[in-house]
Formats: sequence, C-alpha cells, structure tokens
Amino acid sequence: MAVYTNVSLDELEEFLKDYDLGEPVSLKGIAEGVENSNYVLVTEKGQYILTLYEKRVAREDLPYFIELMDFLADSGIRCPRPIHGKDGEALRTLAKRSAAIISFLDGICVTKPTARHCEELGETLARFHDAGSGFKSHRANALGPKGWEPLYRQCEHDADAVLRGLQKLLSDELAFLADNWPADLPQGVIHADLFPDNVFFIKDKVSGLIDFYFACNDTLSYDLAICLNAWCFETDKSFNATKARGLLQGYQRVRPLSEREVDALPVLCRGAALRFLLTRLYDQLNQVEGAMVTTKNPIDYVDRLRFHQRAKTAESYGIV
Amino acid sequence: MAVYTNVSLDELEEFLKDYDLGEPVSLKGIAEGVENSNYVLVTEKGQYILTLYEKRVAREDLPYFIELMDFLADSGIRCPRPIHGKDGEALRTLAKRSAAIISFLDGICVTKPTARHCEELGETLARFHDAGSGFKSHRANALGPKGWEPLYRQCEHDADAVLRGLQKLLSDELAFLADNWPADLPQGVIHADLFPDNVFFIKDKVSGLIDFYFACNDTLSYDLAICLNAWCFETDKSFNATKARGLLQGYQRVRPLSEREVDALPVLCRGAALRFLLTRLYDQLNQVEGAMVTTKNPIDYVDRLRFHQRAKTAESYGIV
Repeated sequence: MAVYTNVSLDELEEFLKDYDLGEPVSLKGIAEGVENSNYVLVTEKGQYILTLYEKRVAREDLPYFIELMDFLADSGIRCPRPIHGKDGEALRTLAKRSAAIISFLDGICVTKPTARHCEELGETLARFHDAGSGFKSHRANALGPKGWEPLYRQCEHDADAVLRGLQKLLSDELAFLADNWPADLPQGVIHADLFPDNVFFIKDKVSGLIDFYFACNDTLSYDLAICLNAWCFETDKSFNATKARGLLQGYQRVRPLSEREVDALPVLCRGAALRFLLTRLYDQLNQVEGAMVTTKNPIDYVDRLRFHQRAKTAESYGIV
Repeated sequence: MAVYTNVSLDELEEFLKDYDLGEPVSLKGIAEGVENSNYVLVTEKGQYILTLYEKRVAREDLPYFIELMDFLADSGIRCPRPIHGKDGEALRTLAKRSAAIISFLDGICVTKPTARHCEELGETLARFHDAGSGFKSHRANALGPKGWEPLYRQCEHDADAVLRGLQKLLSDELAFLADNWPADLPQGVIHADLFPDNVFFIKDKVSGLIDFYFACNDTLSYDLAICLNAWCFETDKSFNATKARGLLQGYQRVRPLSEREVDALPVLCRGAALRFLLTRLYDQLNQVEGAMVTTKNPIDYVDRLRFHQRAKTAESYGIV
C-alpha cells in the first residue's frame, strides 16, 4: 500500500479542468498499489481512481500501460478503463507526477482465496492471455530472467544478514535457472503481478483485474507460475494442491497448456519465486524513508522456492 | 494514516446482514484516521465509511463518540452520521474489533490552508461548540492537563535522545502549566483533534468535520488553541498571524470569546503544543511494528511551544 504524494485541492481543481468530469467532490488516498499513489476520486460525474505515478514506474512505460488497459477494456476484459481528457490524452501531470484517472471497478479482493476463487482466477487469467494476443505494443519484462542477476548483485552482500545461507541459495538458483529456463514457450502479454490484492471478486466471481504496472511481454505460463506462488500457499507456508488444481483447471478450460508448458511448470515456479524473493529482499534492504509502506517478508519466498526445487514434474501442482 | 486490520469478504458479508444496506460492492482501505482502520465501503445502497476501532481507542468510550455524532448530525453540524443496524445498534463487531458504519461526507481536506479556510474553520468550530452545549453525555479528556504528566514520565528518559534539552523543556513547561492553567473557563464538548486532515472543504466552504475519536468535555477555548497550533504555522515553522486572525474572527462571529478566554490564549496554546509534542514523542519512542503509519515529527511542536512561550498576550494571535 502506498500514498506518497499529497494532492492539494487547488492542484486537483486545475487538473480536472482538462476532463469532462465536473467538479471534485471527494478525494481519499487508498491502500492500493504498492508502486504508485492511488486515490478514490469522486466528481460530479461519478467515482474514479486517480493514480499518481511515483518514480519506480518508468515514465516511458506509461503509454504502454494506458494503451493496454484501453485495449483490454475494449476486448471485454474487466479492468480499469483510462479516462481520456478533453484533448484525448489519458496521461497528464499532477503534483509534479505523471497521473491518470481510470474507471472505478466494483468488487473486493479476497484475503483468503478458496479453491473456487483460484479456479475463477485461472479462467480469467487465460481470457486475459487470449485477449492480449491482439495487442500490438511491446514491453520487455524488466523483472524477467535477465533482470534477476543485476538485482542479485545489489543484494548479495547483505543477503546473509537477512537469512543465513541466503546468498548461496540465490546464486545457486540463478545458475540453475540460467541453464534451465525454457526460452521458447508461447509468449504474450502477461500481468506479472496478479496477487490476490489485484483481483476483485463479487460473490465468488472475478469482477476485475487491477494494477497493470508490471504488465509486459513474456512467457504466458510464467504468469501462471506467479499465480501458483501468490495464491496457492497458505500463511503457514504449506502448499494447497487443491487450490493449484483449481487454478490450472480454470486456466486450461479457456487456454489449454501444451505439453512443454506443463513440463516447464516447476522451473517456471522456481523463477517466479526467485523474482519475488529478490525484489522483496531488495526492498527490505532499501527502505524508502517516510514512505507509508510495510515491506513484505522475503522469507516467504525462500520457502516457496524450496518447495518448487523439490517438485520434479507438474504433478506437484495437481496436473496428472 | 492507518489500515491495521484486514477484513475478509466473508466477514464483511456476514457483518452487513445486520444492516439494511444490501450487498457489499467495494471495500478499500483509506489513509484517514490515525487511530483506527478506515475503509470506503460501497454497498448496493450507496457509499459509506467503515471504521474498525483499534486498541488505542477505549471500547468503553465508543458509545460516547457514536452518540455525539448522532447528536451533532441531528443538530445540523456536518459530520458523519452513524448508520444503525436493523436492531438499532450502531456499534457491532467485525474482524474481532468494535466496528461502525458511518455516512460518507463529501469534501476534500486542504493541505495548505489559507486565511479564508481558517476563517471558515473558526466559524464551524464555534457552531460545533454551540451545538455541543445540548449534549448530555460526558467524557473526560484523557489527553488534557492531567494526562500530560503521566505521558511525560513515559518519555522523559529518552527525550534528550530525540532532541538535546528536550527533557528540561518538557519538565519546565509542565511545571509552568500546572501553576498557570486556567481551570474555570467555559466548558463543553470539544473536538480536541481538529487538524486540517479532519476538516473537509468544497469550494472554500467547510463541508464536514470528521474523526471525533478524541472528542471530550473540556475548555472550549482550548479547542481553539489546538486549531491555532494545527492551522496557523507554516511548514517553515513560522507563525502566520493573518491565518490566526481569520480563525479567531470566524470563531467570534458565532461565539464571542470572553475577556478571560482571550487573556488565557497564550497559556492555552502552550498547553495544546505540549499535548501534541508529548503524544508525538511517545509515538516516536513506541512505534508499532508493522503498522502502516508514519509517525509525525514531535520537533514541529517544540518550535510551536517556543513561539507561544514568547507570546505575552493574545495580541500575538491577532486579537488587538
């Protein structure tokens, strides 16, 4: 969660003059989106989300995200729709940040997903992957396999202070993944951060996906591996195979996995665990003074990584 | 700001069965209220604020706050109105906390108040004081003069680690206030925490007051002294006498101060500065692990206190 930037009423009134949304009625900073400042904005026309892009999101990537949300919303995916100003632009400047207004999505994220939620998620993820195949813009995954080594270099010296033996675990895993990463699986637009707080539900049905600010072009089944990590482990760190089976069944109902994608699941899951382990470790070692953020515990992903290292085939994830 | 408690969808659905508000549509943790967890809750019936009372608010005080909001809203003061359940109760339990739903107030708080905003605030504060005179319940001010000494005792040993000389400044000031506190000024219900983030505006007019969880019975003009501290100092710590004059003029337009209240202003302002200095110091020395809160800098109130120590009469605050 994060609200980094204060927006003054004067600035907001000025900003809204470029839109057909009427006068501002209410603005509340919300605990949504770790990378940006987000607000529920109520205007005379309705309820919206106002996002101010903080420095961790590269300015040159913003058009990709905005175009992607426009494209997905047009394709029938339930996601925020960028609100365009009177001049057609959806990206503007507010409080010295790039900023956008997007539509408000109904729904509530689940804190304890059930197997039913995971099945729904799988279906939705596959629909999103199918829809993304028509999207023309391209963005490389900055936090994909090529990004792990530089991240590791910035953390290696302090890793053992966080957990003894962590540096060796990371370097061994990097070496393993460099040799075993499946480079030629089906590619497309992936969300790359589809954690439970980025998925809204209404009565067990997915009502929307949010926070597309890690979206990029990469291996589709890697997105599924991220979800296996994010949705199918319990707070006691145990792996819930029923939830995993639900996720995979829901996904395959819409987009069946090829045999090679299935076979690659353990390695993809190792990569996904390493990615979140590295970024959480980096964040813990580089906390931003004054940011209203609690850093997430990297150790959760050590346990996940160890689980995946023991998985020999996709059977560990409920595919038989 | 704070969101301490996660509410699951199941819990929320169960909770809402006791209300006539329909099904939940959206729930977002917001950066409002330092003491409690607050959410914007959208149901089929509309938009509300859901508050979960965390441990810092005493459970036995909650009926006072709820009755006060009911009473004030009935008296025409723009403040949140508690939503009562089907059984008439406004206070219930959610996620193991006391919880209440209150109405959603339009308006946006100002980050940089102008003299015009201060004048509006003064008028509103006086109306609130007048309305409160009919309120029958009573709650002592736990953070009033009698509460300062015990707070000081919990901080004195670490005070100089925060700022050299702070312990002596605090103990001298406590001794001065013990001898000079005006005990017999007009009493009533005070807000006791009317900072800019607790006042909403629409187009330069106050649209509502929120966060009544420090409200209590105490010296009315002490509430004004809190506002002088909270609204009339610039970020460079300078005192803006034009804003102070606006605040006092606005107030006196509705509720003229007696001569004794005017004469007591410098001492009341010293007390108000000490109160926030002590609580901020205490919070800084006792940070809650994992709470998504940035503690506020106590040193701002050292500078305010020193300003008030130099004020001999209310002329320093623009009353001539």
